[in-house]
Amino acid sequence: MIIVGELINASRKAVGQAIENGDAEYIKSVAADEDKAGANYIDVNAGIFVGKEPEYLKWLTLTAQSVTEKPCALDSPDPKAIEAALNVHKGTPMINSISLEKERWDKLLPVVAGTDFKVVALCMSDEGMPTTKEDRLAIADKLVEGLTAKNVPVENIYVDPLVQPLGTNHKFGLEFINSVAAIKEKFPSIHFMCGLSNISYGLPERKFLNRIFLAQAVYAGLDGAIINPLDKPMMGTIAAAEALAGRDRSCIKYLKAYRAHLVVS
Amino acid sequence: MIIVGELINASRKAVGQAIENGDAEYIKSVAADEDKAGANYIDVNAGIFVGKEPEYLKWLTLTAQSVTEKPCALDSPDPKAIEAALNVHKGTPMINSISLEKERWDKLLPVVAGTDFKVVALCMSDEGMPTTKEDRLAIADKLVEGLTAKNVPVENIYVDPLVQPLGTNHKFGLEFINSVAAIKEKFPSIHFMCGLSNISYGLPERKFLNRIFLAQAVYAGLDGAIINPLDKPMMGTIAAAEALAGRDRSCIKYLKAYRAHLVVS
Repeated sequence: MIIVGELINASRKAVGQAIENGDAEYIKSVAADEDKAGANYIDVNAGIFVGKEPEYLKWLTLTAQSVTEKPCALDSPDPKAIEAALNVHKGTPMINSISLEKERWDKLLPVVAGTDFKVVALCMSDEGMPTTKEDRLAIADKLVEGLTAKNVPVENIYVDPLVQPLGTNHKFGLEFINSVAAIKEKFPSIHFMCGLSNISYGLPERKFLNRIFLAQAVYAGLDGAIINPLDKPMMGTIAAAEALAGRDRSCIKYLKAYRAHLVVS
Repeated sequence: MIIVGELINASRKAVGQAIENGDAEYIKSVAADEDKAGANYIDVNAGIFVGKEPEYLKWLTLTAQSVTEKPCALDSPDPKAIEAALNVHKGTPMINSISLEKERWDKLLPVVAGTDFKVVALCMSDEGMPTTKEDRLAIADKLVEGLTAKNVPVENIYVDPLVQPLGTNHKFGLEFINSVAAIKEKFPSIHFMCGLSNISYGLPERKFLNRIFLAQAVYAGLDGAIINPLDKPMMGTIAAAEALAGRDRSCIKYLKAYRAHLVVS
């Protein structure tokens, strides 16, 4: 599982304040915690600071990478912010995210064209949000076609099929997971990336629902998620789900998660 | 989800003793608890008592049904035991289970032929236990063909694809779940029934693994399991898994499970 740590996001109050105050120590501690907990990428997002996003995203990237060797997921629709962060980023970043919305597509495509960046491709278009498996597959098709035409290898594309709330429509979980299976079948070397928490919007015991949803999606082929890596029950669920989905020879990762007290009945 | 309550099984020490002592009150209390917790069938098993199984299975059936309107799952490979229990059973029983093993098949087929009984059809043959999806589908094919030829409607067949331990082979979870999807695709009106706990044999935190496995199998089409219905985390997982798999319009069953304190983050 490719895990993107979601915590360094300016929309979280403590992070927003740390950015405004230039509190590098706080950002470093979060980045170090996410690294230690198993994040493969550290997401950095300064989206709430209109006008200052490039400056702040660059600072977040520098600050986070001062304590971790892990690459960042540069989380912005603004090419200026991405470019500013790229100037200081070490390693191969993930760009989070391009979509089929024309403005976003036109602005971000030149940034990722011909690079070896990992590119999150969000299944969203100007025609609105997808609701069915077919909607998602159609958008994913166009995203893959457009990105590969600009020399982004398919194995560097991380499709986000876009989770929609189960409380809105009782088929929204199933349609999402079915789309994972369908996209994986069509593009076997592709990857996935997604936030999960939208699934449980408006329902009680959201973390529980998020975990069960993730377990099902992993069976269908989901191999990446943007989560809080410090959430032990979630990390334990990922370990169990991957083992049960046949991705953990001799259950080595599951047993490691058990010994790290991530797996608790 | 069709839930068969597994607790009235003579291999459990308290139940075995209650049977030997004729302690009807204990059996009644377990049956009533399983009913109240949401079991659709009450499994009754007296398999450890060689020679006395017919007498005891009949007594268990009578005793359990003195406190519940729910039908029983008559759990024996011995047609004499099944017939004895059938003499006193009220409602439409589940027979647990026939298999493709010749002796079992030959003995139990006459018991279920032409009836409206629910029939658990275990994917086991004299050639040994299935390990792959293809093994299971091949056995299920023969079971369905043989049972329907004897006028058991396909919608009364509950295929048990036979869970094998993940600790033995890291693909055993995946192969099982894939077989659920494949059998469901081939026979859309068929049902499933299975024990889960074999999946976690030899691994730590078995209940946790069992639950995650169930959640994945529900996505693939599993609609029945023999479990402990008093296991609240398991029942909460079933509610969440079914909602996420699109089987719970307006999340009514999930919200009911939440209010019953079965869903806890």
